[in-house]
Amino acid sequence: MYYLGIDLGGTNIAAGLVDINGKIIHKGSIPTEKDRKHQEILRDMAMLARRITEDAGVSLKTIECIGVGSPGTPDLENGILIYNNNLGFRNVPIRAELQKYLPLPVYLDNDANCAALAEGLIGAAEGVEHSVTITLGTGIGSGVIINHKIYSGFNNAGVELGHMVTVAGGNLCTCGRKGCWEAYASATALIKQAQAAALENQDSLLLQLVNGDIKKITAKTSFDAAKQGDQVAKGVVQQYLRYLADGFCNIINIFQPEVLVIGGGISKQGDYLITSLQKIIEQEIYSREEIPATKLRLASLDNDAGIVGAALLGFTSEQRSALTIKKIPRNS
Amino acid sequence: MYYLGIDLGGTNIAAGLVDINGKIIHKGSIPTEKDRKHQEILRDMAMLARRITEDAGVSLKTIECIGVGSPGTPDLENGILIYNNNLGFRNVPIRAELQKYLPLPVYLDNDANCAALAEGLIGAAEGVEHSVTITLGTGIGSGVIINHKIYSGFNNAGVELGHMVTVAGGNLCTCGRKGCWEAYASATALIKQAQAAALENQDSLLLQLVNGDIKKITAKTSFDAAKQGDQVAKGVVQQYLRYLADGFCNIINIFQPEVLVIGGGISKQGDYLITSLQKIIEQEIYSREEIPATKLRLASLDNDAGIVGAALLGFTSEQRSALTIKKIPRNS
Repeated sequence: MYYLGIDLGGTNIAAGLVDINGKIIHKGSIPTEKDRKHQEILRDMAMLARRITEDAGVSLKTIECIGVGSPGTPDLENGILIYNNNLGFRNVPIRAELQKYLPLPVYLDNDANCAALAEGLIGAAEGVEHSVTITLGTGIGSGVIINHKIYSGFNNAGVELGHMVTVAGGNLCTCGRKGCWEAYASATALIKQAQAAALENQDSLLLQLVNGDIKKITAKTSFDAAKQGDQVAKGVVQQYLRYLADGFCNIINIFQPEVLVIGGGISKQGDYLITSLQKIIEQEIYSREEIPATKLRLASLDNDAGIVGAALLGFTSEQRSALTIKKIPRNS
Repeated sequence: MYYLGIDLGGTNIAAGLVDINGKIIHKGSIPTEKDRKHQEILRDMAMLARRITEDAGVSLKTIECIGVGSPGTPDLENGILIYNNNLGFRNVPIRAELQKYLPLPVYLDNDANCAALAEGLIGAAEGVEHSVTITLGTGIGSGVIINHKIYSGFNNAGVELGHMVTVAGGNLCTCGRKGCWEAYASATALIKQAQAAALENQDSLLLQLVNGDIKKITAKTSFDAAKQGDQVAKGVVQQYLRYLADGFCNIINIFQPEVLVIGGGISKQGDYLITSLQKIIEQEIYSREEIPATKLRLASLDNDAGIVGAALLGFTSEQRSALTIKKIPRNS
């Protein structure tokens, strides 16, 4: 028995055939070309799913269902994407459109929630009941897993942890609020912080590493320059980690997850990131040494989290519980 | 069948006999005298519970269990209070001590979580699956109810929504962090804000209402003076509501609860408070008109929430579900 997982992104659509252990056995992707009509995008999603299944030599009859992870707010019951700004979707019947081409049950959820489900069940937080996954990229994606299930509130519009104000009255966020965590702790925010510092300190390594072209500064530039001892970059990184830790401490004080998973571009900083954050968090969280503490971990599924999480939407409670008991080799 | 609920506070211990509808049929209280040994406090709790039962003319045999709501972090499984600063408790075996005097099952949870359970099941959020209750008093108490159950994380130390930083690097909180919501939006914080404004504006109504004695300014003073048109007080209240809304918007963006309940001293401002907050929240939350929005409501159980919530700890899932279906008359 197999499960199709489709990760609908603004640039690419990725799909994979996933087995009962949550392991991808075959995958592929196509460009989204998001300016097209949604009917065309969804037809291509179905064709991609069909092609992957054929390429894997698997019969459609052995496929249990299709899961779709999409940005935006879903109507879970009816498989409709109520709204997504980036794709220009409004009340798009994802399930009904896909079922025109594939006679299978279709599940839908938010893409960040799918990524959190994958990390929570078979990724960095496998084996625990409560986990939170934060993706530090262009924005801040977030998902909360409680008892092996996605928590997204009564209207399925949660959990927008990136849009939690941590700096009241601060920088304007894309959502319209001032001072959201995302406006301070996303990769985009770090780039802006580094660019501002580079402008003020023209002789810093930040500019040298990009041959003086300030637009080429990436999130990695700051960490690289800081590791090479550049004082300006060190300042940028320290301040950025501080902003990052503010949000992580909030999340721990609120959710007390057993594991807090960090993914996205920033997570490539690996153990350096975890160790630095851990130091700040230990001093800040509302807790006592008598009480077990949340573990910080790097995401382990990378870009596959979206596909796997979407596929996992169709797993029953029993299948999910079974997954968390037997440990799956991650890199096989 | 009856349930005993005990609300252990730093000043008083309140206990009540609760029926299967979550209604208090008899209650009473005694001073905590918290500087005593925990054994003595717990013996008095048991005696109070026994006396209430006798006074109500109810046989101990018809009592299903005892629930205790206590400040601090509980070990739910073993009925031990791991830590509470205010009472000076550390690994206090609440269950074992009470069972010396009363041969009944004993459940324990955090007092703010108990209050949220009561509001969520038979109070202001009755009939909904997801609710958050915030108590604005000396500090900020908080509890999250998901599917009729308390959510408190893997270590039962959540959800400390008052200790979410909303003003990074801001005022020092009692927890040691800077800029916690509690340091800006509790009743204590409002009093400090009003006192500072009164000091700077000696002719404001804030001071007149307390006959010039700045120490007598309460949370109510600011609202009273603002309603009477005092510009200084209006400024204080506006700024306070802004701080309050920052946290409420965060909670909505994160939890998307169907109902967000506001209790504690500040909630006595009633509809004025709700209407003012609603205006700010509508402009700020990360949502769309297509998606149903969280409702703000005033707590309806007042000081009884602690007792009722503690009693509800012993209710089975089925009993909890039954409660949310039949609507209980609140003031009978």
